[in-house]
Amino acid sequence: MAKTNPGRFFEDYAVGQVIAHAVPRTLSGGERALYHALYPARHALYSSDAFAAACGLGVAPLDDLIAFHTVFGKTVPDISLNAVANLGYAEGRWHRPVRAGDTLRSQSEVIGLKQNSNGKSGVVWVRTRGLNQRDELVLDYVRWVMVRKRDTDAPAPETVVPDLAEVVAASDLVLPEGLDFTGYDFTLAGEPHRLADYEIGEVIDHVDGVTVEEAEHMQATRLWQNTAKVHFDATFREDGRRLIYGGHVISLARALSFNGLANAQMIVGLNGGAHANPCFAGDTVRAWSEVLDKAETSAPGVGAIRLRLVAVKAGGEPGALRGEDGKYRPEVLLDLDYWALMPV
Amino acid sequence: MAKTNPGRFFEDYAVGQVIAHAVPRTLSGGERALYHALYPARHALYSSDAFAAACGLGVAPLDDLIAFHTVFGKTVPDISLNAVANLGYAEGRWHRPVRAGDTLRSQSEVIGLKQNSNGKSGVVWVRTRGLNQRDELVLDYVRWVMVRKRDTDAPAPETVVPDLAEVVAASDLVLPEGLDFTGYDFTLAGEPHRLADYEIGEVIDHVDGVTVEEAEHMQATRLWQNTAKVHFDATFREDGRRLIYGGHVISLARALSFNGLANAQMIVGLNGGAHANPCFAGDTVRAWSEVLDKAETSAPGVGAIRLRLVAVKAGGEPGALRGEDGKYRPEVLLDLDYWALMPV
Amino acid sequence: MAKTNPGRFFEDYAVGQVIAHAVPRTLSGGERALYHALYPARHALYSSDAFAAACGLGVAPLDDLIAFHTVFGKTVPDISLNAVANLGYAEGRWHRPVRAGDTLRSQSEVIGLKQNSNGKSGVVWVRTRGLNQRDELVLDYVRWVMVRKRDTDAPAPETVVPDLAEVVAASDLVLPEGLDFTGYDFTLAGEPHRLADYEIGEVIDHVDGVTVEEAEHMQATRLWQNTAKVHFDATFREDGRRLIYGGHVISLARALSFNGLANAQMIVGLNGGAHANPCFAGDTVRAWSEVLDKAETSAPGVGAIRLRLVAVKAGGEPGALRGEDGKYRPEVLLDLDYWALMPV
Repeated sequence: MAKTNPGRFFEDYAVGQVIAHAVPRTLSGGERALYHALYPARHALYSSDAFAAACGLGVAPLDDLIAFHTVFGKTVPDISLNAVANLGYAEGRWHRPVRAGDTLRSQSEVIGLKQNSNGKSGVVWVRTRGLNQRDELVLDYVRWVMVRKRDTDAPAPETVVPDLAEVVAASDLVLPEGLDFTGYDFTLAGEPHRLADYEIGEVIDHVDGVTVEEAEHMQATRLWQNTAKVHFDATFREDGRRLIYGGHVISLARALSFNGLANAQMIVGLNGGAHANPCFAGDTVRAWSEVLDKAETSAPGVGAIRLRLVAVKAGGEPGALRGEDGKYRPEVLLDLDYWALMPV
Repeated sequence: MAKTNPGRFFEDYAVGQVIAHAVPRTLSGGERALYHALYPARHALYSSDAFAAACGLGVAPLDDLIAFHTVFGKTVPDISLNAVANLGYAEGRWHRPVRAGDTLRSQSEVIGLKQNSNGKSGVVWVRTRGLNQRDELVLDYVRWVMVRKRDTDAPAPETVVPDLAEVVAASDLVLPEGLDFTGYDFTLAGEPHRLADYEIGEVIDHVDGVTVEEAEHMQATRLWQNTAKVHFDATFREDGRRLIYGGHVISLARALSFNGLANAQMIVGLNGGAHANPCFAGDTVRAWSEVLDKAETSAPGVGAIRLRLVAVKAGGEPGALRGEDGKYRPEVLLDLDYWALMPV
Repeated sequence: MAKTNPGRFFEDYAVGQVIAHAVPRTLSGGERALYHALYPARHALYSSDAFAAACGLGVAPLDDLIAFHTVFGKTVPDISLNAVANLGYAEGRWHRPVRAGDTLRSQSEVIGLKQNSNGKSGVVWVRTRGLNQRDELVLDYVRWVMVRKRDTDAPAPETVVPDLAEVVAASDLVLPEGLDFTGYDFTLAGEPHRLADYEIGEVIDHVDGVTVEEAEHMQATRLWQNTAKVHFDATFREDGRRLIYGGHVISLARALSFNGLANAQMIVGLNGGAHANPCFAGDTVRAWSEVLDKAETSAPGVGAIRLRLVAVKAGGEPGALRGEDGKYRPEVLLDLDYWALMPV
């Protein structure tokens, strides 16, 4: 009996199936420190216990993307080990902050299946839930990936394409309990801009660039216990470069976006996302954002801002996303659509 | 008076001598997070407080190799600064788990000496003990190294070669207090295989590979406060590569062995080990294991599995250890013989 | 309205101005672990809770340079984003140890201004204070930098050159509450040398070398939330190398100085410092120290030693600081003058 995990193939999934992912993970101040070492993260709510307490949150949460990466990483051995492509995200919501000491685990429900016309692969949609040690929902999101078939002669399953929201409605966003921005300290946060200062359609160039090293993205990806081979094994490619985990680019871009969006503090919704082109060590990553929407919330002093976050490599320009053919420009690495909370 | 530590030479050791090693070290969640960033470590007992508690252990211990590296690192300035080669390990036992907040220190007793026939060096055997802040024994093991003489004219000491066990007897393994695998959650652990599913002689290919970077092995080696110059100073070799600490390869191989041995949870015995060939940045490390023995233990639901863990670089094949000449094949980096605890 | 921070230019400063720097930071065991992974730090007082407690300090503080880098990093967006050069340090004092759980923030007062004769830039002197979550002073120091003018036609400010002490007087050093070296364990600390064993003028070669990697200095610099672009963006230089944060070299040299100065435990005063030449990845950094002074203190068993700590790259020799022209030799990276506490 083979002992190692070959991953699941397209025909191993069935709509309604719930997969409990392995290896729960307790997070600590260590993960926070590493997150700050690996990304230029500066959002004050996640950096300072005192700042978080002043916003009604008590001890500072871990960055929302730590929760995302941890939950996502657990799904890799079951969902994307044989994936050809990570196609999209939708309906992501953060339900409660994660703090040092919390233990996260993940489970995914298969909500859609569609075999490709070539009969060699198919698309699998899953709704993934991250739960803490009290079985409370921390995060959920839909992801769809293209997965190879083990046996191309296996019969195609009934096609089920889930009906996914284009955008998480602002009224569906979950506000962290106690959050209050009425006494928000803009000086300590690093920028004076409040929600009212941003206009829909506004494009913000985040200016700074970070050149990525192999040692860094591998450490980050391991930290989330993401086991996809292409991130670690140089023998997969002739040039010895490893494909960088798409989530590494998300965190890099989000951290760079501090410069211009220092007050877009908490990520609460993930509307969609595409890893437009692969990223490799040696690339210098820059980021720009576009304000897509703004909304009120029920929490005192707290508004919601919907942002398009775009990561680019050399040649990328703020605002330049797609070519004349409608496809992503070759220098675009990431196109992420998310909601963040900001003082009004 | 010279202030720096020149290290000890062969003639500085005497059988019976006990050396208290410097710089005790308090470990925290930070070391755990770094361990997970530096190695693809996924064993659930060390990853999740909740999983460890369900196994009767309370808060999750730090990986057993964190204890090993920390204790080992402290011995380097006194034992191996002038070592020509690290020759072997024997009679290693883990006596109790180490947790965040524990402070470790090390001491070594010289238990054997044998001058080489060339008169220029000799072999030193030491039994090293790791103690925590309550002076409880955490770990002990025998190591022997070849050490240069300062003065080749110094008289040879009486030869004392310790009588070392080939294998730690299963009945001598120390079971962590409270350990109970009767309610073991195989789904959360990541694999369904229990001790009964493994056969003596079975060889497991752990499949995954990790290409090593200079920044990673140096960070790991520093973290254990291992001061051996060859790991950090590129000017030692013409090609600028640094010799990777053998323990880094041990942890890499052990972490890779999760894929096929996810339930070989706790390392409790070290029967032997050889760093067969040097490892350098750029090498892609893979691992395979061979089941050498199985045994019952007194803890509920807990068995012991004796494993040979082999790390290889490019060209290594599962099961291929030695050439026709009886010597390790050139692509073999590590041959480690250890006991782990596994649900029966 | 541009949302990103362009940094301040010379004409944006006025003597007496107090700048509250953004993004307070809570430190944990994670930062300590990373510090140990990034630098070969071994001073026992910062490595072991038990050792610190035996010296009257309770739980081990974080390395004094963690406090320095954290406080310094916060000043970068306001002080040195448009700096041409970091010219010097003076009058630095550590006022109380920082421990895991503490939250640090920084503020700077402009204490001097002098426009350069070319009219294109000027020197700004600031006194920076690091405060903890109880608003207690943790650290203060004076730094002066050369900053570009935005508008070369802007009028020159009145020249104010602060009167800075050449050296912090030993009597002005702040002794950590409770510090007591009368029961100091030299064996655990790693070296037998006490203050009486060092002679003024003595030069100590710290022997070991560390070859620096891009991934390491970037992780360190990010950890301190230092945002200066030149440390992260390879496109600034034709050779793709990033300029290493001067503080990285300080920590590297200080950690290397353990070998010969293991008992120079706590840094309490910063008399001056110069980043003599730039450091790049690939450089192998070594260090030597010169004993500049010794003094008594009011704490039991505790003396103060004033040290010149010099970091060099290839070609550097212990004791060789300046050429015949009085300028730093090209292989000198750092010349730091500080006070440390040592058992008498």
